[in-house]
Amino acid sequence: MTQYFTEERSAEAVNGCMGETTDPRIREVMACLVKHLHAFAKEINLTQAEWQVGIDFLTKTGQICSGERQEFILLSDTLGFSMLVDAINNRRPPGATENTVFGPFHVDGAPIRSMGDTISLDGKGESCLYQGRVIDLDGRPVEGARIDVWSDNADGFYDVQQPEFQPKWNNRGIFATGADGSYSFIGIKPVSYPIPDDGPVGQMLNRLGRHPYRPAHMHYLVTAAGFQKLVTHTFVGDDPYLGSDTVFGVKTSLIAPFEPATNGRTQWQSTFDFVLTPG
Amino acid sequence: MTQYFTEERSAEAVNGCMGETTDPRIREVMACLVKHLHAFAKEINLTQAEWQVGIDFLTKTGQICSGERQEFILLSDTLGFSMLVDAINNRRPPGATENTVFGPFHVDGAPIRSMGDTISLDGKGESCLYQGRVIDLDGRPVEGARIDVWSDNADGFYDVQQPEFQPKWNNRGIFATGADGSYSFIGIKPVSYPIPDDGPVGQMLNRLGRHPYRPAHMHYLVTAAGFQKLVTHTFVGDDPYLGSDTVFGVKTSLIAPFEPATNGRTQWQSTFDFVLTPG
Repeated sequence: MTQYFTEERSAEAVNGCMGETTDPRIREVMACLVKHLHAFAKEINLTQAEWQVGIDFLTKTGQICSGERQEFILLSDTLGFSMLVDAINNRRPPGATENTVFGPFHVDGAPIRSMGDTISLDGKGESCLYQGRVIDLDGRPVEGARIDVWSDNADGFYDVQQPEFQPKWNNRGIFATGADGSYSFIGIKPVSYPIPDDGPVGQMLNRLGRHPYRPAHMHYLVTAAGFQKLVTHTFVGDDPYLGSDTVFGVKTSLIAPFEPATNGRTQWQSTFDFVLTPG
Repeated sequence: MTQYFTEERSAEAVNGCMGETTDPRIREVMACLVKHLHAFAKEINLTQAEWQVGIDFLTKTGQICSGERQEFILLSDTLGFSMLVDAINNRRPPGATENTVFGPFHVDGAPIRSMGDTISLDGKGESCLYQGRVIDLDGRPVEGARIDVWSDNADGFYDVQQPEFQPKWNNRGIFATGADGSYSFIGIKPVSYPIPDDGPVGQMLNRLGRHPYRPAHMHYLVTAAGFQKLVTHTFVGDDPYLGSDTVFGVKTSLIAPFEPATNGRTQWQSTFDFVLTPG
């Protein structure tokens, strides 16, 4: 006799429907997703009205997405799901610099600059010298590492968010290390900013009693032949949102010193070494 | 010292962020959702590439939604989530007619018809007399029950899917029971049909090796003062898709007899009693 869907074996009924030639990984991922989605509804006794709220929320989240806005990534970020996937896929040995979320504001093709150059082009903000070395787990310098950096400006916006107000490539640049693995560039001391909160995700955060802010940070994408790609930030240690980053990107090891400068050129300086993992 | 997000305590980190004044039910539902979503990613070791497939899928699913199309409901239906929520919220005592999914094709305000009237207006299909009684758990007739019925036509489409080809209110009608609780109307023997499968959900079903068909069924929404609302179907027992309804709506108790008619008016007849639950 055919076994029809029942509340008790709901996930089994759904997962039992998959074809025999279905890709094994797709089968495994979907079966696991269905199992957990059903367990969620059962554990919480989800009501029809709550289900409708969920349908409406997902629909609005999809409909606000555009070429410039990805609200589902924002949702994944604010539910800690992006950080979790990042963590699962970037487990590192002790001593290696840790990953954090990539974020939506990286742009390929930033200008290649010389060590010591300034990336801040709009004359705003408090200047900061960023310096340190790219090294391996044994402390040896990594030559030819490519360091792609980006941050918001002093008003809390990335250049791509304000194409009419900021110079193109403001607070962006790519640097390559020499034989000693060292790097240096001048940017601004970044500022904390809210993620876009005028859509469904902002409404969700509001209903959850959460703020939309990210603590101030400088983004880094560091790549070098023979090493794992490093996607990370350094965080300004005295930021009031450090303990409540709305996308959960902060790790203790990524909080960098931002100190009054002694170099005569900038107001602040921040020294941080990037330790790459063999890959 | 602040506890930052870690892979191990990822859900706790996210759920610990909620405000103290957050509505208790919202807090409970969201905490449970986050817990299960994170458990899913961990159990399956979700890759970054798979995460991206998920983001793209949800985005496309939202963007195909319109006033006439609700792809997220279709997703919920095809993952058995709609049936599960229906089951959780409509547990019935033994002997009561069971619920099943409402579906997207009900329209408010169908014509009120007299017992015995015909709801099929396009002259297509094999005619069928539907008859039976609306009764309570003790078998007593329910007077004044409102029976709202709807089905596809012989081509497998509801009138609202073909506003230019089908008469308005084709295969729809509302009937009210008298003192004996009995009902009767003439429709067609419904046919199986695919759910809309030209969007992301159709692609998903294809990747899972699943077909998009629903077995033939007649929809019922039965309401009466003092009783729980009954949303259900009756299914044609010899349908080839009965064991693999793509939205998992079939229950053994809802498979109705569809027999060659002995009434001299129609080709088929189907007798089914609706047993209402006090509410």
